[in-house]
Amino acid sequence: METKSQKALGIDIGGTKIYAAVVDKNGKILSDIKKYATPKTRNEIENCLKSIIAEFEAVIDVVGISTAGSVSNDNTRILGSTGNLCKDYPKINFMKLSDKKVVLENDANCAAWAEYKIGAAKDKKNIVVLTLGTGVGGGIIVNGQLLKGKNGAAGEMHFKMSRNKRRQCTCGAYDCFEIYASGTGMRLSAQELSGNPAMTTYDVIDGVKKNDELCLKIFNTWQNDIIDGIIGLANIFDPDCVVLSGSMAEFVDYTKVTEAVNKEIVTTPTKVVPAKYANNSGLIGAALFALDAKSD
Amino acid sequence: METKSQKALGIDIGGTKIYAAVVDKNGKILSDIKKYATPKTRNEIENCLKSIIAEFEAVIDVVGISTAGSVSNDNTRILGSTGNLCKDYPKINFMKLSDKKVVLENDANCAAWAEYKIGAAKDKKNIVVLTLGTGVGGGIIVNGQLLKGKNGAAGEMHFKMSRNKRRQCTCGAYDCFEIYASGTGMRLSAQELSGNPAMTTYDVIDGVKKNDELCLKIFNTWQNDIIDGIIGLANIFDPDCVVLSGSMAEFVDYTKVTEAVNKEIVTTPTKVVPAKYANNSGLIGAALFALDAKSD
Repeated sequence: METKSQKALGIDIGGTKIYAAVVDKNGKILSDIKKYATPKTRNEIENCLKSIIAEFEAVIDVVGISTAGSVSNDNTRILGSTGNLCKDYPKINFMKLSDKKVVLENDANCAAWAEYKIGAAKDKKNIVVLTLGTGVGGGIIVNGQLLKGKNGAAGEMHFKMSRNKRRQCTCGAYDCFEIYASGTGMRLSAQELSGNPAMTTYDVIDGVKKNDELCLKIFNTWQNDIIDGIIGLANIFDPDCVVLSGSMAEFVDYTKVTEAVNKEIVTTPTKVVPAKYANNSGLIGAALFALDAKSD
Repeated sequence: METKSQKALGIDIGGTKIYAAVVDKNGKILSDIKKYATPKTRNEIENCLKSIIAEFEAVIDVVGISTAGSVSNDNTRILGSTGNLCKDYPKINFMKLSDKKVVLENDANCAAWAEYKIGAAKDKKNIVVLTLGTGVGGGIIVNGQLLKGKNGAAGEMHFKMSRNKRRQCTCGAYDCFEIYASGTGMRLSAQELSGNPAMTTYDVIDGVKKNDELCLKIFNTWQNDIIDGIIGLANIFDPDCVVLSGSMAEFVDYTKVTEAVNKEIVTTPTKVVPAKYANNSGLIGAALFALDAKSD
């Protein structure tokens, strides 16, 4: 793939914020990073995206958009639910927002692409990237290609951690990895183990810093759930490494987690590592993915 | 890929039996199926394989071998443990057994290749194949290619079904999918739910036929564990279909399982179907895989 000296406008559409910047093929950000509150209606979002693109269209070759929700295999449209974005957001015709080629991809997939191309898993062809935030996203690279599945919805981290219907997940089903390994998962473990329904993720992190025994127990419960999930994923994918991204990833003890995972897996040894692009990974990954797609 | 009118000798090496036959590119078996008891030592196994190959070498173009254990990405050697085969079995130099090209692949991967090329998932590019027997094997096709991972060990069905260390798996870890969804899993569920440590898988199947209430409960527990595992795999892979193979697959209620899976997954609708090649899938898959590998 020859990407020459092309530039992409990377746009990251989240539930609360939209970020945008011009990015080169090395992932270098060449402009200010524009930041907007995500509008509440489809029309306003379209207008916001149009005005961002208009500002940069003259200096870019392609537009890469990172979005919540699964994205079709041809990278043109959203297939499924998109969390806290407005209900008719998936109906936006992203392809018509620019005269340049527009490439759409799921946010966790964009984060995975950034880590694969220039980040913590650079040049590793088989990786699993987990974004641990309020929820959990998954982006998986198999043999140097994004794992998309038959329609593009692959990489959802909703596999079960329990047979007992203990916790209902945001997806409606019970006991998905997401509802244990996310920030929400830590909060629920805190409330279960403390008996205090007001206890927050912040309380746990704060207590861990102060070596509070209960908070350490809660934290380890959360981290063990992450270990258990990664064991399953490592056995399924035999990956070069597992990269943890997102706001909760900074709290993980990578040495301990790597050791615990390797102790149990039946596949070959792997590593669990922090993402290089904790911030801007959606924006940079979308830009790099769009540049790669354009040069195919 | 052009396979012309080539023929492969397909050999399936199992813990108790070795099967072999000549197979054409359409998966048609052209010879008698030879059947041998698996010898107990490495030397005897080598000699057995050499004599099988010598018998057919003149009429074939390539040898495909299906084996227990994970196989390297170049299909030349065994990486890991191989169950009840002799300890130094992985040291066999399979490449030296014939003057023709020899292609080695894991048995569940061979079963998956057979289903993908000519079986229940013909021409579906994204599938998950589970072999439900004494244990559980996994063969996954992503975008028309076997999922192998960084070293070739991918597709192991050891993801956790419980956080409580309820059942130890044959791999040493606790609560893997294998130890719930296998025949062994059904037996353990039977013993747990009946309180009778002598109850067998056969007793359950027999009881289900007679509409025995306890046996139906045990059976549904086993089948629900399979459903739970497939939900996770479908969310990870967004597959065209999930194919169930192996001796336990015939007992599954495919309509019920497909319905239950589709009710919970967040990816796009899929199907759970029985394998077309319940028997000989290792032999036929190994032959087809070798013919495809030869023509690459």
